[in-house]
Amino acid sequence: MTAQPHRITVIPGDGVGPEVVRSAQRIIAAAGVAVDWEEAEAGAEVFKRGDTSGVPRETRASIERTRVVLKGPLETPVGFGEKSANVTLRKLFETYANVRPARELPGVPTRYAGEGVDMIIVRENIEDLYAGIEHMQTPDVAQCLKVITRKGSEKIIRYAFELARREGRAKVTCATKANIMKLTEGLFKRTFEQLSVEYPEITAEHLIIDNVAHQMAKNPVQFDVVVTTNLNGDIISDLASGLVGGLGFAPSGNYGDGVAIFEAVHGSAPKYAGKDVINPTALILSSLMMLRHIGETAAAAAIEDAVLVTLEEGKAVTQDLARQTGGDVEHAASTTGFSDSIIANLGRRPATVPSRADATPPASPATRRPSWAYGPEVSAAVERRTIGADIFLESWAAPGEAGPALAALAGDVLLLQMVDSRGTMVFPDTGLNPDAVGVLRARFVAREDGVAVSDADIAGLLGRVGERFAWTHVEKLHVFAGEPSYTKAQGQ
Amino acid sequence: MTAQPHRITVIPGDGVGPEVVRSAQRIIAAAGVAVDWEEAEAGAEVFKRGDTSGVPRETRASIERTRVVLKGPLETPVGFGEKSANVTLRKLFETYANVRPARELPGVPTRYAGEGVDMIIVRENIEDLYAGIEHMQTPDVAQCLKVITRKGSEKIIRYAFELARREGRAKVTCATKANIMKLTEGLFKRTFEQLSVEYPEITAEHLIIDNVAHQMAKNPVQFDVVVTTNLNGDIISDLASGLVGGLGFAPSGNYGDGVAIFEAVHGSAPKYAGKDVINPTALILSSLMMLRHIGETAAAAAIEDAVLVTLEEGKAVTQDLARQTGGDVEHAASTTGFSDSIIANLGRRPATVPSRADATPPASPATRRPSWAYGPEVSAAVERRTIGADIFLESWAAPGEAGPALAALAGDVLLLQMVDSRGTMVFPDTGLNPDAVGVLRARFVAREDGVAVSDADIAGLLGRVGERFAWTHVEKLHVFAGEPSYTKAQGQ
Repeated sequence: MTAQPHRITVIPGDGVGPEVVRSAQRIIAAAGVAVDWEEAEAGAEVFKRGDTSGVPRETRASIERTRVVLKGPLETPVGFGEKSANVTLRKLFETYANVRPARELPGVPTRYAGEGVDMIIVRENIEDLYAGIEHMQTPDVAQCLKVITRKGSEKIIRYAFELARREGRAKVTCATKANIMKLTEGLFKRTFEQLSVEYPEITAEHLIIDNVAHQMAKNPVQFDVVVTTNLNGDIISDLASGLVGGLGFAPSGNYGDGVAIFEAVHGSAPKYAGKDVINPTALILSSLMMLRHIGETAAAAAIEDAVLVTLEEGKAVTQDLARQTGGDVEHAASTTGFSDSIIANLGRRPATVPSRADATPPASPATRRPSWAYGPEVSAAVERRTIGADIFLESWAAPGEAGPALAALAGDVLLLQMVDSRGTMVFPDTGLNPDAVGVLRARFVAREDGVAVSDADIAGLLGRVGERFAWTHVEKLHVFAGEPSYTKAQGQ
Repeated sequence: MTAQPHRITVIPGDGVGPEVVRSAQRIIAAAGVAVDWEEAEAGAEVFKRGDTSGVPRETRASIERTRVVLKGPLETPVGFGEKSANVTLRKLFETYANVRPARELPGVPTRYAGEGVDMIIVRENIEDLYAGIEHMQTPDVAQCLKVITRKGSEKIIRYAFELARREGRAKVTCATKANIMKLTEGLFKRTFEQLSVEYPEITAEHLIIDNVAHQMAKNPVQFDVVVTTNLNGDIISDLASGLVGGLGFAPSGNYGDGVAIFEAVHGSAPKYAGKDVINPTALILSSLMMLRHIGETAAAAAIEDAVLVTLEEGKAVTQDLARQTGGDVEHAASTTGFSDSIIANLGRRPATVPSRADATPPASPATRRPSWAYGPEVSAAVERRTIGADIFLESWAAPGEAGPALAALAGDVLLLQMVDSRGTMVFPDTGLNPDAVGVLRARFVAREDGVAVSDADIAGLLGRVGERFAWTHVEKLHVFAGEPSYTKAQGQ
């Protein structure tokens, strides 16, 4: 209980959003936490009024004041917005850490019940393929940039280790595809290895992402905290939710340097809207993450216990659960009734699962700025030179024709090192004969080892190549700190 | 039984490879299939002899003759090869379809036992992020190209539909992240939708990949055939294996236009090598896929029945299974003993699960060439123009400084449309203030709508920009058939 009420922005959202949000608000009030809610709008109605972001200026202003958001699901009506308002909110406030606990709950029947699944997926939320940078190279060849930065990696990995430390968790697993993507996923893995030494009390392990998915199905209790890149995290956090009862029980928090947004993972479920039947557990569990974030750990533990008691006793069971357990769907608890039961159970402790009331984690804010140095001076200190360029061409020419033609265009400073198709070298001939798709990459490097190639050299090359071929995309080949900073083609 | 023996290349491979391969060979012989095996080498010993591909010329020549390979797992010893020999083999023969059945087996205890999981994951095996095209944009920013082509998508999707038709399967699910990656994953999804009309008897559905992972954990029997891009497929095929007993029971086939390679998914497990203890089921199941591929469907069904009988009776149980079932690990069956039991059970039918002997699928080869037209004439027929360029810069400049400076460099033909950081627009100012990572993208477009931008215009722009900023990467902005063929930034 606090003297000063907390100011929190609440976005009821679309569909069942208002019902699950009201449910959480009532329970928080019953637990004695004083909140000055700033109600704000986002989602379907906003889009329909012509705001293509789905997030009005007043809502942004409220969040800038309160720094904490509890929100229901938002819809992006077809034909109104190009980007989801949920995603826009995360981008607006750069909530880089998507935290998805997946914990076994009593009374929720799953194939893994009784095993004690209790893991937290920490997903990078800003970069990777979700930067959404796509270019058609030809009418039939699409490209998306997967971008992984050291700074972005440090922030999320540090976040995961700090979370593990704060919650007394023993292990952090890093999940990547670094064996295939040595530069991007490899950067994430190497950053993890470097940071892990700062957390000697925590076991740090790396697993390949496909093995993580395999192990989650086979033996999920081995996982504690899992930190991973954006797309990997998207997939395995939904997988993890599936192990412990599905999206109806899946809370989430999005943490940035200043702002945190708490929401259920499920959608707006319009067909249940306004019927007082939806299971509000996911949003209630999300609100517990919020209470811990603002320092109301005792209230969070009390509500958590009351939720656990309600689920384990099974007296108030919402329709979705009744359906799964073969219970009486017709006489199932309403959203309101289920919430009333939780309120009635405040002060009780669960009988079959441990309470977290006695293991209250410290309330320190979860976010921590990167502690490594970044910036122009740091970048400038890295010894570097450009040693060539990759030019991507729209071309159906046979490698035996394209190769010599490109080699003849290389000029005095550069030479053609190889030509590939979708990453497999086709010139010089290696006996490989991959199916042509209409794009070739020509790699040109300095004729003399160690010589730096200038912008003028590359411009000249582009001009010569452009007279015979339609180029679409150019990458400089850098050597940073003496290391070639690009990958070889298959067969090269 | 055939008059003429089949010629098949067999690569025993590393670790436990020779044992599991011999096991399959013995069972195939006992089932009466005459094979002229061409034994060939690949993997650790080849790398150690200095062949950096791990796949010697004689092995390639054998495969070119036989077109069919049965292989054990291959190791890439640290410090010898840069690329895995397993991957090199798939690339060499462009086996674009990775087929991973996940079927419940009797006697194999899993949490899903008795539900009847029986799905096939069809994974694109050549393109996507696995083309391995990576470039460091700065010392701290890594990039990998995700490449999806219409032709590659058509090939794998057509493969999946043909497989479903051949095996009498009712549904094909397409799994993508098209809601986020509208051009790349979207191309795969649109191709799926266009092709599905050619297969009216098969139910075609699309699910977002994270939902697929979620549903596989919650309700896997809903899946029949699942077709997906390379990375998605990597993750969910291992997940699917985890539902039905793990990699010890996970077969796979890699199909190309001319060559097919059959292998177990598991590794070489060196600590079990030579001990006659490894479970050979995965490789035996892979060899059944091979027998069906070469038309020996009756023998395949007989062996499959014998494997099912052996597993369901549980008299010969290998160590790994004994460990899982709490059985007698010390007196578990050897690799040889387990294989002997399968041979002894040839001719019997399983009691608890259906035999596939009566539902023999036709033996038509699985591969089918794309039937849409690709090539220079088709590309050239697409109305097109270049309307600008994205230039990626190494820069820590504040957006308020970089923006006007870049705008001033745009010249007479082009103008600066926006600047972004990791896909989020930072200039013109939108109130977004994302964390800087040292790379900005500047988007320049034609000042006059509809005007085409020439290579010379872009070269001039690059020259001007290059005098003030260090550019690292350039993408042309194309309009194909009247459609802008690039995505907008968040906030744009």
